[in-house]
Amino acid sequence: VEAISLPPWRSALARALHRNRSLVYSRYAQLATVAGDGRPHNRTIVFRGFGEGNRLHDLKFITDQRSEKMMQLQANSWAELCWYFPKTREQFRIAGQCTIIDAMYPNPTDQKSRRITWHNLSSAARSQFAWPRPAQDLASPEAFESDDLDPNQPLDDFALLYLNPIQVDHLELKGQPDSLYPQSRCRYSLEMGEWRQRSVNP
Amino acid sequence: VEAISLPPWRSALARALHRNRSLVYSRYAQLATVAGDGRPHNRTIVFRGFGEGNRLHDLKFITDQRSEKMMQLQANSWAELCWYFPKTREQFRIAGQCTIIDAMYPNPTDQKSRRITWHNLSSAARSQFAWPRPAQDLASPEAFESDDLDPNQPLDDFALLYLNPIQVDHLELKGQPDSLYPQSRCRYSLEMGEWRQRSVNP
Repeated sequence: VEAISLPPWRSALARALHRNRSLVYSRYAQLATVAGDGRPHNRTIVFRGFGEGNRLHDLKFITDQRSEKMMQLQANSWAELCWYFPKTREQFRIAGQCTIIDAMYPNPTDQKSRRITWHNLSSAARSQFAWPRPAQDLASPEAFESDDLDPNQPLDDFALLYLNPIQVDHLELKGQPDSLYPQSRCRYSLEMGEWRQRSVNP
Repeated sequence: VEAISLPPWRSALARALHRNRSLVYSRYAQLATVAGDGRPHNRTIVFRGFGEGNRLHDLKFITDQRSEKMMQLQANSWAELCWYFPKTREQFRIAGQCTIIDAMYPNPTDQKSRRITWHNLSSAARSQFAWPRPAQDLASPEAFESDDLDPNQPLDDFALLYLNPIQVDHLELKGQPDSLYPQSRCRYSLEMGEWRQRSVNP
């Protein structure tokens, strides 16, 4: 049995999540993508944990197939997540490529994750996928009413979004008790399949 | 005297700032830019208010000339700010082009703003501009020690960054008391010099 070694930034991120767990919104982060015209876009998304199977190191999010970021990611799969933790005053910038697991995606493990993730959503979160198309002219209020959706059957527009990191920049604005530095910053990068880390100037 | 009409999203943003004022970090937002290779980048920045003179509608930030975002913005001036307010559970996505006011920028009003902004920084915030070059291999701790800098003389690497909005997307996750909708979302866009607004599906 091969031991699975976690990327070195994972323990720092796990610690940040733990120490900020009293704030619901410490699981919110901002995902930047690029549109076809070369302009950046940026929105808040909710971290849903890490992936399963061969996606153990990928960050998992959910998305609506009809959202504008889907078209952007189809043209350019690169993204950077900026994740600020208010309580501990630290920031992770996580860059990598995204993969979308929609209803058509062929891999059975990924489809199982998609079903489980759908199942574990709150009823309110599921119902958003039955709402009218996002960012279109506002529909009538009735269009936003829906009965509880089947927790065992994801709607077609429900997709998983995985971010596969190749670089992580971790900045701590608080001086650390054992450090001579006012702030600390570490850059992790995946090179030839190995994670390297170096301390850099904040 | 011509009345200066504020863009219609300004009152919504002012209200969010006011209602979240107990959280220091409600003035932090994430700025997305695009690098020369077409990949997005994203980092937390601190809102410093609106501009002066002919920049009354621009959002003001400060930046270090040596930071990576400077090279990115020189190649592609488009940016999108994502600003989430935790207390009121609302998000502003503000897209536009950026202008950098560095030590060489010729406009006297802008240079005056640059001097005033420098003057109003805390001593700790000013000292960061005397630190070694960001994101380079970590220098010795002594390189981060500095005497108090002259509040009347900005360092050369200190610059203002203005974001000039052309589109604002305002999403309120909390249902409003007077609304039939579970969430509300409004898109403002500058068209032929006029701000238009429309309600869209969240």
